[in-house]
Amino acid sequence: MKWTTAISTDEGGEHLIWGEKLSALMQEKTFTESTFLLLTKRLPTQKELKMFDMLLISSIEHGIAAPSIFSARVSASVGNPLNATLAAGLLATGQWHGGAVEKCAYYLQSDTTAEDIVTRALAQKERLPGFGHKVYKDKDPRAEELLEAATKLGIAGTHTQKVRAMTEALQAHKPLALNIDGAMAAILSDMGFSWRIVNGCFLLGRLVGMMAHIDEELTNEKPYRRLDDTDITYTR
Amino acid sequence: MKWTTAISTDEGGEHLIWGEKLSALMQEKTFTESTFLLLTKRLPTQKELKMFDMLLISSIEHGIAAPSIFSARVSASVGNPLNATLAAGLLATGQWHGGAVEKCAYYLQSDTTAEDIVTRALAQKERLPGFGHKVYKDKDPRAEELLEAATKLGIAGTHTQKVRAMTEALQAHKPLALNIDGAMAAILSDMGFSWRIVNGCFLLGRLVGMMAHIDEELTNEKPYRRLDDTDITYTR
Amino acid sequence: MKWTTAISTDEGGEHLIWGEKLSALMQEKTFTESTFLLLTKRLPTQKELKMFDMLLISSIEHGIAAPSIFSARVSASVGNPLNATLAAGLLATGQWHGGAVEKCAYYLQSDTTAEDIVTRALAQKERLPGFGHKVYKDKDPRAEELLEAATKLGIAGTHTQKVRAMTEALQAHKPLALNIDGAMAAILSDMGFSWRIVNGCFLLGRLVGMMAHIDEELTNEKPYRRLDDTDITYTR
Amino acid sequence: MKWTTAISTDEGGEHLIWGEKLSALMQEKTFTESTFLLLTKRLPTQKELKMFDMLLISSIEHGIAAPSIFSARVSASVGNPLNATLAAGLLATGQWHGGAVEKCAYYLQSDTTAEDIVTRALAQKERLPGFGHKVYKDKDPRAEELLEAATKLGIAGTHTQKVRAMTEALQAHKPLALNIDGAMAAILSDMGFSWRIVNGCFLLGRLVGMMAHIDEELTNEKPYRRLDDTDITYTR
Repeated sequence: MKWTTAISTDEGGEHLIWGEKLSALMQEKTFTESTFLLLTKRLPTQKELKMFDMLLISSIEHGIAAPSIFSARVSASVGNPLNATLAAGLLATGQWHGGAVEKCAYYLQSDTTAEDIVTRALAQKERLPGFGHKVYKDKDPRAEELLEAATKLGIAGTHTQKVRAMTEALQAHKPLALNIDGAMAAILSDMGFSWRIVNGCFLLGRLVGMMAHIDEELTNEKPYRRLDDTDITYTR
Repeated sequence: MKWTTAISTDEGGEHLIWGEKLSALMQEKTFTESTFLLLTKRLPTQKELKMFDMLLISSIEHGIAAPSIFSARVSASVGNPLNATLAAGLLATGQWHGGAVEKCAYYLQSDTTAEDIVTRALAQKERLPGFGHKVYKDKDPRAEELLEAATKLGIAGTHTQKVRAMTEALQAHKPLALNIDGAMAAILSDMGFSWRIVNGCFLLGRLVGMMAHIDEELTNEKPYRRLDDTDITYTR
Repeated sequence: MKWTTAISTDEGGEHLIWGEKLSALMQEKTFTESTFLLLTKRLPTQKELKMFDMLLISSIEHGIAAPSIFSARVSASVGNPLNATLAAGLLATGQWHGGAVEKCAYYLQSDTTAEDIVTRALAQKERLPGFGHKVYKDKDPRAEELLEAATKLGIAGTHTQKVRAMTEALQAHKPLALNIDGAMAAILSDMGFSWRIVNGCFLLGRLVGMMAHIDEELTNEKPYRRLDDTDITYTR
Repeated sequence: MKWTTAISTDEGGEHLIWGEKLSALMQEKTFTESTFLLLTKRLPTQKELKMFDMLLISSIEHGIAAPSIFSARVSASVGNPLNATLAAGLLATGQWHGGAVEKCAYYLQSDTTAEDIVTRALAQKERLPGFGHKVYKDKDPRAEELLEAATKLGIAGTHTQKVRAMTEALQAHKPLALNIDGAMAAILSDMGFSWRIVNGCFLLGRLVGMMAHIDEELTNEKPYRRLDDTDITYTR
């Protein structure tokens, strides 16, 4: 099996990542900067760094009710090594839990215009990724906060404009607010992240929350989580 | 990367598994027989076939309360492909959910005597794998049923004797009944299964239950399972 | 979190699966029959049983070169429990490795006619799932063997007719042979399997092959598989 | 199923993580600081922040030859969503690929003295976790670099002393150098990380490398990685 890569190599006793020395990254850069480098092939500006830190932190922990979190705890509770419990948590994210960022970024990075994206989605009765929220009908304050920061930091560009154009095009037919997934998709696209891995921003943040919960589960709880009888209705 | 295998190859237009033609297995054998062949390198006798079918069926489905089952449903509910949801279910089995079969078989297939195994476990305060049950204190009827079948079918051999000897050695100190994990470990060992994969018997059966539950989840339920607020206590 | 299920329950000291006693299944049925019951809500006829055994065996093992197999071995080689290594193997199947069965069955079980399915796929330049093979251009002998068996056993029904109609409709434009994925999709659909879990037939069979390979890896090989330097080209 | 947690909650429209407002973390802190907070229940000092960034970066990417990296690419290549491919990568880490950090930290955080740990490991012929390297026989320069930084930053404490004492105790019997896993274990322990999740530092870093490689695989390569015939020897 043959493998070809341009990401990293060893040269003269140094490990180089997109041409930067790993040892120099360790001495001079933050984890967020190094992550930005790996995923976009260049180091961020100070403003991009601030923005990327904000986005990563925004996913870090939203409470034990999230499927990614309690599923990781269940896997820990039946006796699995850390890597397997984190994998279990990742497998409890998906199309309906984090996945909209990728789909929205895919549209934003495509050649299709904002108007055409909206028209097609409405015609095919597809739920437009990055729009709509159970609670926030008019405006999603978290999305606005991120976009405001992006504007202030000078990062908002063509993809943010496109997602705003989608919002307007949608408004005429269905008044759904841009949500946090749509904001993340636009800002990450403006900073040069491929749609294929924008969802990694959410997953990377979320992994940290999982770890905290796995530690708590193993420290405080007895093994082997099962549903209680009162949770179950048998309908046959 | 170099790989060496003796399991299967192509020869003269036929795919051979441990020397048997795949096309012939499809025409003449059952899935259980073919599974036995792959895992022990030989086809089973009619009596071994009956026994192995019994063991596989015994794990097939024990209700929605099991972590492997509801975790697979959670993964399906947030939008994942079937292979990923089944992986999520497997990661919700573990040392405390299915894992005792492997540990018990490891002891049974080791050179250590039944008495020494028990003595060491007691000295190290290790929970002896294959023994003890919340409800069945004196006798686990499911374990006895399997061992009875193994005896009647002429399969019970040295490993069954050894697990019986462990039961007796334990009796003097701690009256724990042999449980279904211990019975499976002994019988599979007597039929020639390596301790490294005896737990696969449980996992293979359980995968079927997961599939039925994933189908039910996707057919009947709305996406995105979360914990209810009433499930959670915040203690800070 | 509330759960509703009709699959299995405990009644009068017995565990019932779609109304059948687990203890009776263990005494009187095979694993294949019990699997059929769980997935279709009824026991198979003798002819359906033969057919389902054939389908399960057909996926059981196709050699170490398959990604599902060598990935499971890699996971074992770095030191993981059996359940995690099998999960790793499942995650190395996907849309391009087993996934066509599900998509094809989805089309076969939909209300769209064979002609419309083909016309739409051609218009959208979608690769029609269940058709085409690198080697078998005119006819895929494995697909024909399965369909022949289904006909002989009296199982081939409306879904097999529909997949044949798709073959004819496609012929006019692009001479792609029906492949083994398409045959499995049609036959499983004719036996009443939901498109949501038809791919489980492949995955269940493949899990057995993974186990055999994991055992071989752990028995014969030293830990920690890495790529060799000769496998890698660095292009920066 | 009842869940109890002290990690995070909603209060007055704010999401609090160990008492800190998520919105304030986003405005004022870095991702590394927020990660430190989640995992140790407090924000780091500036020196701890520098150290933790160094440790996270050290695992971020070591080349395509690592099992975690090429396994993630294989999973992507057969057609899986990002979360599943990252889970596949995590399942290709394990006891022999990243796992030594956890075991070494477990020993360092236990009440057993350095001398007793070494004596027992030698008596049981256990490979002492955190010690030994194929290439670096006398001194592992990467381990020394990290420990030097920890000393300079004033972080090296009782656990670093203990790992040094283990090195000396081992020296008399078997001259194995402290490796990078041992250094990470000691430094993370000195900063207050539980042994249960110290390996998360490696896994979090590594996830970033996986993402870069998944993006490269999907962008540059055709689907469906298989072994080449020349990779395989059939020995039956």
